Amino acid sequence: MQQFQIRTDLALEATESVRKKDASHMRGITIEEYDAMEDVHISKVVILTKNAAKNMGKPMGTYITLEAPDLQESDEEYHREISEELAKQLKSVLPGIEEEKSILIVGLGNRDVTADALGPFTVDNLFVTRHIIREYGKQAYHATKMHQISALVPGVMAKTGMETAEIIKGVIKETVPDIVIVIDALAARNTKRLNRTVQITDTGIHPGSGVGNHRNAITKESLGIPVIAIGIPMVVDAGTIVSDALEKLAQEYAGGKASLDYFRNSADTQLHNMYVTAKNIDETTKRLSFTLSEAINIALDME
Amino acid sequence: MQQFQIRTDLALEATESVRKKDASHMRGITIEEYDAMEDVHISKVVILTKNAAKNMGKPMGTYITLEAPDLQESDEEYHREISEELAKQLKSVLPGIEEEKSILIVGLGNRDVTADALGPFTVDNLFVTRHIIREYGKQAYHATKMHQISALVPGVMAKTGMETAEIIKGVIKETVPDIVIVIDALAARNTKRLNRTVQITDTGIHPGSGVGNHRNAITKESLGIPVIAIGIPMVVDAGTIVSDALEKLAQEYAGGKASLDYFRNSADTQLHNMYVTAKNIDETTKRLSFTLSEAINIALDME
Amino acid sequence: MQQFQIRTDLALEATESVRKKDASHMRGITIEEYDAMEDVHISKVVILTKNAAKNMGKPMGTYITLEAPDLQESDEEYHREISEELAKQLKSVLPGIEEEKSILIVGLGNRDVTADALGPFTVDNLFVTRHIIREYGKQAYHATKMHQISALVPGVMAKTGMETAEIIKGVIKETVPDIVIVIDALAARNTKRLNRTVQITDTGIHPGSGVGNHRNAITKESLGIPVIAIGIPMVVDAGTIVSDALEKLAQEYAGGKASLDYFRNSADTQLHNMYVTAKNIDETTKRLSFTLSEAINIALDME
Amino acid sequence: MQQFQIRTDLALEATESVRKKDASHMRGITIEEYDAMEDVHISKVVILTKNAAKNMGKPMGTYITLEAPDLQESDEEYHREISEELAKQLKSVLPGIEEEKSILIVGLGNRDVTADALGPFTVDNLFVTRHIIREYGKQAYHATKMHQISALVPGVMAKTGMETAEIIKGVIKETVPDIVIVIDALAARNTKRLNRTVQITDTGIHPGSGVGNHRNAITKESLGIPVIAIGIPMVVDAGTIVSDALEKLAQEYAGGKASLDYFRNSADTQLHNMYVTAKNIDETTKRLSFTLSEAINIALDME
Repeated sequence: MQQFQIRTDLALEATESVRKKDASHMRGITIEEYDAMEDVHISKVVILTKNAAKNMGKPMGTYITLEAPDLQESDEEYHREISEELAKQLKSVLPGIEEEKSILIVGLGNRDVTADALGPFTVDNLFVTRHIIREYGKQAYHATKMHQISALVPGVMAKTGMETAEIIKGVIKETVPDIVIVIDALAARNTKRLNRTVQITDTGIHPGSGVGNHRNAITKESLGIPVIAIGIPMVVDAGTIVSDALEKLAQEYAGGKASLDYFRNSADTQLHNMYVTAKNIDETTKRLSFTLSEAINIALDME
Repeated sequence: MQQFQIRTDLALEATESVRKKDASHMRGITIEEYDAMEDVHISKVVILTKNAAKNMGKPMGTYITLEAPDLQESDEEYHREISEELAKQLKSVLPGIEEEKSILIVGLGNRDVTADALGPFTVDNLFVTRHIIREYGKQAYHATKMHQISALVPGVMAKTGMETAEIIKGVIKETVPDIVIVIDALAARNTKRLNRTVQITDTGIHPGSGVGNHRNAITKESLGIPVIAIGIPMVVDAGTIVSDALEKLAQEYAGGKASLDYFRNSADTQLHNMYVTAKNIDETTKRLSFTLSEAINIALDME
Repeated sequence: MQQFQIRTDLALEATESVRKKDASHMRGITIEEYDAMEDVHISKVVILTKNAAKNMGKPMGTYITLEAPDLQESDEEYHREISEELAKQLKSVLPGIEEEKSILIVGLGNRDVTADALGPFTVDNLFVTRHIIREYGKQAYHATKMHQISALVPGVMAKTGMETAEIIKGVIKETVPDIVIVIDALAARNTKRLNRTVQITDTGIHPGSGVGNHRNAITKESLGIPVIAIGIPMVVDAGTIVSDALEKLAQEYAGGKASLDYFRNSADTQLHNMYVTAKNIDETTKRLSFTLSEAINIALDME
Repeated sequence: MQQFQIRTDLALEATESVRKKDASHMRGITIEEYDAMEDVHISKVVILTKNAAKNMGKPMGTYITLEAPDLQESDEEYHREISEELAKQLKSVLPGIEEEKSILIVGLGNRDVTADALGPFTVDNLFVTRHIIREYGKQAYHATKMHQISALVPGVMAKTGMETAEIIKGVIKETVPDIVIVIDALAARNTKRLNRTVQITDTGIHPGSGVGNHRNAITKESLGIPVIAIGIPMVVDAGTIVSDALEKLAQEYAGGKASLDYFRNSADTQLHNMYVTAKNIDETTKRLSFTLSEAINIALDME
């Protein structure tokens, strides 16, 4: 597993990869799968033990994946249904939201880089309430139960000179939310998952994840409050697709292994700083960010 | 003075207004003026006493104003010269920067509202160094002296649910800078100052200032470290220009006073939520934000 | 009437202005008014004679105005109803569309200037069909009747070096549509009409109209095919609101006339190249352009 | 050659590919190469015969390629030097510009799709003169010689319902320029050419070229006046990089040929509608479009 390092932010892809190599490594992992609606598949991977976490290269916790092949299409009604299903899944990992909570939603990534703008764009469409409730009370919304929602787009380290985690930590200290939700553009291993898969996890964000490679951990351990992460794969590393093609080949030509490694390395070098995206990524990022913001608004009864 | 409330963020306009009404109110205020270059006028207003602050409706401190009628033009070389002059003025109010400092630069306002985007756009072009110096040392820049520059675009309360001041406070607690510089779009009283005047002050930002009306104080008192504010008037309240025209008239027709007040009030009501801007404000905001970011980069030796 | 030149693109405002000065000038003009729904007022002004056109300062033809005070609000359902009402009104002036037509829709204005971007933004959301029908036939849409819709954003003369009318003429010669619909941001005289009024006319666009002041005529006479123009006031000339306040005053103080003219002129000079807009113009332009594109899509059965 | 179809808009890549397979196919082609400055390589490929055009899969004409590995860097001075070298090369293919000409510059592509926005963004920074010269004469510029420059961003067929070529033809008929320059984002075969290579050709644009696949010819034959095309590779087809890796492999494992074809096809299917781009493509597109607009401004003495 070391040799073929898994370049994916998706627990589901990590599972597939581990299972293929050594089924015994699946101990300590539970997987539950079902179809939520036609052509919408839900997988729930729970990593239960430290050993399983090590085998998977992912921290212990729950990873819910929604797969919808038509998520790239522009059908408004379909996206609305996806938002509702995502809201349901999101609620299942948000701790204690049957009571009023203060929730900070953070859009990670760089709004000026299309493939990395999912987080900022999602936050643009959220319904925030904290300032209104603090000034006028929840009666301003004619509601008896109302979460205090706040939202932040911290920017990326290359532009701020600060770790994203530093900015979030500071804002949490000052505004004291109960829960953090972070949204980030992910990298997948397989192009068939691009823009079609949503992952929701209670493990937060770990170094080296995401398109923009936000280095510091944004987790319950680092922030002191639960961190729910929502992500959608927006890119595949260009080197990965060559590696994958070559690996398939290796399974047929056992003798060619050394040579394949040579090609893989050369592909990696040349394809450094390149990635594979869908041709319509600009439009897709806008649509998917809207679907996510709707899902969050619904989950938090802000609709 | 109560009756004719001064709707301006510019100390210079407040000075003019006060002087016109009662020259005796100018006690406790020093004004120094000179031409920095052809058609570039510098005014330095210092409010020295609490009484003077009360008369002016502005806190005690130093207000440097650069007036340049051609600031709206697109001449690159001219803007470069303005940036250098602004850098000089900025250095004069930045405490202790002959030594290495950690400086947080904050772009206030809403990047999606043209008239309010000056701050965010300025921050987009800054040269940040904090993350590099912390990871590799200042030798990464082959420099013996190097400030640690960080930058933040906090967003506006209607989008974040948090006071801008809360976000800045949190980030300061976590990253501990020595100085904060805030950039904001201002409101002027007189259209002739629109996009042609830059104000630099060591008094920070006060409630009710700026286009976006950021309510909480962002000052040395509230944040615990020096706050330098840089602003350019991007709008005039629509009601103001009618008031001004009517006031001029009142000086000629003493008898018409009551009637004038009636018209002023009716203008105010109808022009609520309207403002006057230059026709080319989209282009102007881009150009002026670049001029400001250059000025800051030069002042902090980041060029 | 020469002295108080009417700076408005709205026939309705011209009517009001003329009526106020000399009711006899209303000969040759019919006005029909009714409420289409609650708080949505429709006015239909028809200028029937050359003499009436001269008195009004507007060409002969039909001007439909929809006034809706809540058009600035962000209620989606309300905007949908407005789109449907606009579609109905638009159909009433589109000649012969009970049969299949080829229709070119042109978004006038500059997409980089918020107040002038209504046309380009509207065109961004249109449903175009011409290329599909020409390649695959209307069966591609499973339809028995289908207009051929094409769309153009010609840009502004300062950026293209060409009159907008030249570009449209050329495209019409090459693609031979039956009808042209042009969308443009208008200038109103009264701030209460800003962003709340839609004008539909079969007279096209005339020199000096609109925010961007597109100089050449875009009319049936100049293009050889019917031209329907749709516009929404996005700005008021800053000089106008001062003039208006002064004019009201003049009605009370007959003696002050000369002095008022002096002030009006001085206001005009100083407010040259300034305009009054709503504070939320960036958001409003996006929303209203979407409402217009929906109206056009509905009117042309493209929904 | 049929089997390994060359997916590239660069004549230089076609040359390399042809040369590798059968050097005899290089008859009828002249290639001239030199270094214009350090690390800036110029290649001039001239396809002289119909037979050579057939072998190359490119029309007869001149193809100048500038290769600069540092073109991705943000060094302003370097980009200025590149602009000057490009201006020199551009002048060498612009017919008769020692005399005053009327020149239409067209930015092909979709400004809302980052990888396809090079053309529109380049046109945004051009210096246009036609409208001024026609109204005030060239004395408006205090010049004795002055080209009439006009510029157009026609948009893409999916948004306009019209072939790009139709729009250009119409505008040419109406405004009668002497020469057309078109700018387009290209597709390369090799990632090492991405954002580092500029191609200038007098053969215009041919069906199937470019990122956005503008189908109709934009050539001297179709438009009746000389067409100079300028392009920079912004994407590589994702399928291509897998094909290339596999092809290299095939040269070592002659026996594996059939299997390789299988993998290539499966890669093609899955990677359909995907492309490979540099990670910083948003920033790169802005910078390169500025470098191109400077080059054109210099070549046409508009600086």
